[in-house]
Amino acid sequence: MKPLDGITLLDLSRVLAGPYCTMLLAELGARVIKVERPDGGDDARAFGPHVDGQSGYFASVNRGKQSLALDLKAPADRALFERLLGRADVLVENYRPGALARLGYDWATLHARWPRLIYGAVSGFGHTGPDRHKPAYDMIVQGMGGLMSVTGEPGRPPVRVGTSVGDITAGLFLSNGLLAALYQRERTGQGVFVDVAMLDGQIAILENAIARYFATGQAPGPLGARHPAITPFGAFKAADGHLTLACGNDALFASLCAVLGAADLAADPRFADNPGRTAHADALQAALEAHLAKRPVAEWLPLLDAAGVPCGPIHDVGQAVHHPQVQARHMVVRAGGLKMAGNPIKISGMPDPTERPAAPALDGDRAAILAWLEETP
Amino acid sequence: MKPLDGITLLDLSRVLAGPYCTMLLAELGARVIKVERPDGGDDARAFGPHVDGQSGYFASVNRGKQSLALDLKAPADRALFERLLGRADVLVENYRPGALARLGYDWATLHARWPRLIYGAVSGFGHTGPDRHKPAYDMIVQGMGGLMSVTGEPGRPPVRVGTSVGDITAGLFLSNGLLAALYQRERTGQGVFVDVAMLDGQIAILENAIARYFATGQAPGPLGARHPAITPFGAFKAADGHLTLACGNDALFASLCAVLGAADLAADPRFADNPGRTAHADALQAALEAHLAKRPVAEWLPLLDAAGVPCGPIHDVGQAVHHPQVQARHMVVRAGGLKMAGNPIKISGMPDPTERPAAPALDGDRAAILAWLEETP
Repeated sequence: MKPLDGITLLDLSRVLAGPYCTMLLAELGARVIKVERPDGGDDARAFGPHVDGQSGYFASVNRGKQSLALDLKAPADRALFERLLGRADVLVENYRPGALARLGYDWATLHARWPRLIYGAVSGFGHTGPDRHKPAYDMIVQGMGGLMSVTGEPGRPPVRVGTSVGDITAGLFLSNGLLAALYQRERTGQGVFVDVAMLDGQIAILENAIARYFATGQAPGPLGARHPAITPFGAFKAADGHLTLACGNDALFASLCAVLGAADLAADPRFADNPGRTAHADALQAALEAHLAKRPVAEWLPLLDAAGVPCGPIHDVGQAVHHPQVQARHMVVRAGGLKMAGNPIKISGMPDPTERPAAPALDGDRAAILAWLEETP
Repeated sequence: MKPLDGITLLDLSRVLAGPYCTMLLAELGARVIKVERPDGGDDARAFGPHVDGQSGYFASVNRGKQSLALDLKAPADRALFERLLGRADVLVENYRPGALARLGYDWATLHARWPRLIYGAVSGFGHTGPDRHKPAYDMIVQGMGGLMSVTGEPGRPPVRVGTSVGDITAGLFLSNGLLAALYQRERTGQGVFVDVAMLDGQIAILENAIARYFATGQAPGPLGARHPAITPFGAFKAADGHLTLACGNDALFASLCAVLGAADLAADPRFADNPGRTAHADALQAALEAHLAKRPVAEWLPLLDAAGVPCGPIHDVGQAVHHPQVQARHMVVRAGGLKMAGNPIKISGMPDPTERPAAPALDGDRAAILAWLEETP
């Protein structure tokens, strides 16, 4: 019923990039065994706020996984870990490069002993290159990768993207690599090593900014809420707050002007085409906001919708998760009594209930995992 | 040599979310046939700035693909499209939901005629739910999904993330779904429909913000450059500009204080643990910046590095792409004479050269594609 039914992942990763990747693979049907250190396990278990003793943060990225506590320096635990490696399809970790090798589990050794095993690593800077040994966190790669330089307002201090997109995109690139490796193994019978760096992931999502830099030699700066090349495409102030507009062509701009009763803007030669509107973006923003000031957001949106002008409210997180479309798509689910984001990959025939299995207690699945190891493979 | 060697994708998608997904799959070895409308093709071909007549933006997300121009309302072109569907493994589109069905290619019809074909769709709101027919662009879903509400500075106007993470994350969720579907087909012999919504993707990346909302009932706001739960973890002003620091535990904070010569902060009871530092984040920021003001960024970073304190510069896009680690990881590649971001999924045994095949001219591969169709499958 699920694409990865029957696949087992052994997951040494902690906090976010690795666990996000394996949570996604668990949603797609994989059995994920979290191997945690005995003294407290995954650091994210301690991240607040807690609800009924559970970290909502930990629960949200570890639902549906199993947990086994192992000390990878203790001989008996290493033997058990190696029995698991012999049964697993995929090993995932997000240690600093070299750390797992120092425990004796470098790729050459892993591949020689378990040739079908796929090994996925996500780290700040990757397993090659001069900075491979340096520590990195989301903040560091958002800064180094250029994303901070194009986010925020011109002339104001730098801002980070409000969620850890450095970790999350790296987790998504890793899950892509692991899925491709599983497919490849069907044909070759061999596992591969997938090496993803958070910094690389930041470069890979620079989109417009990197295309613009290489075309012009000029590094783009932040533009507040507006798009660098499409206008009007941004956030605009109405009587009681902001809304978003995205007019990608002249026809949509004409429709927008009609809804606003802004015949002056429709006729203004500066705003006749997208290059003109982009060149005069500040003047256009002020002019549009003068019209938008006549009504509140809740009145404008249905008028704009009816005219086919792409628009939307700016939701806080509470408004976002309670939105009827988000609810209809089962994008809020419950696991172990806590609410969290659902699975955005909807696949025909794959169940997508609003209840998910809970995140595991530390070492909570030891007996079940030992029993499974005793079964004939 | 590449995981998806031998796989053919038929790609009706335009601009960003779909093309980003299929670019990634092309990097992993898939043959991607872009089916474009004859009058101008993919809208992104017109996106500036252009270099030697090529859109750098278009080239960067369409390198290594083939192009065939077809009018899906013309009988002869439909017949050719259907021959391609008979040979393809995957069909990808990012029309508004219902548009492809109106051309006669709804999922039920596709699946009945070509049971092994996998169908991937990415749209603003998805193929189900009350808002499925509405148009959406990156700006709209960044606003509706809550990401804008946690990005930027408190008390300032909303800002968007400076790259189109609404499109890009949706593209990444779709590529995950398609890879999982390819693996599943090895066992079932059947294709599936993968339905990804940009808005769903925004909910799925809310991370800390959504965990915090569900734990407390309070919607979090923007925090500038700082992390909501870890302190100091943000951007800090030195003598000549900002740097980032990420001290996830007390030992790292102690190391930071030692490097700064800030015995006063190390001894301050308000800053003794992470909850205290987070509760007094503004006071700590000011105190740290008073010390950081004594030296420029370029002097602080090696001192912090040497002490093992996670830190980094804030790069503009030019500095980011020229960084030695980024270069060493081949994260800048050249295709058709243009530079662009490389592939962040590094797989053992898979070539990762710094030259990539160019993006196609509109309809530039018609002869090759027709010849391929004549070959015995």
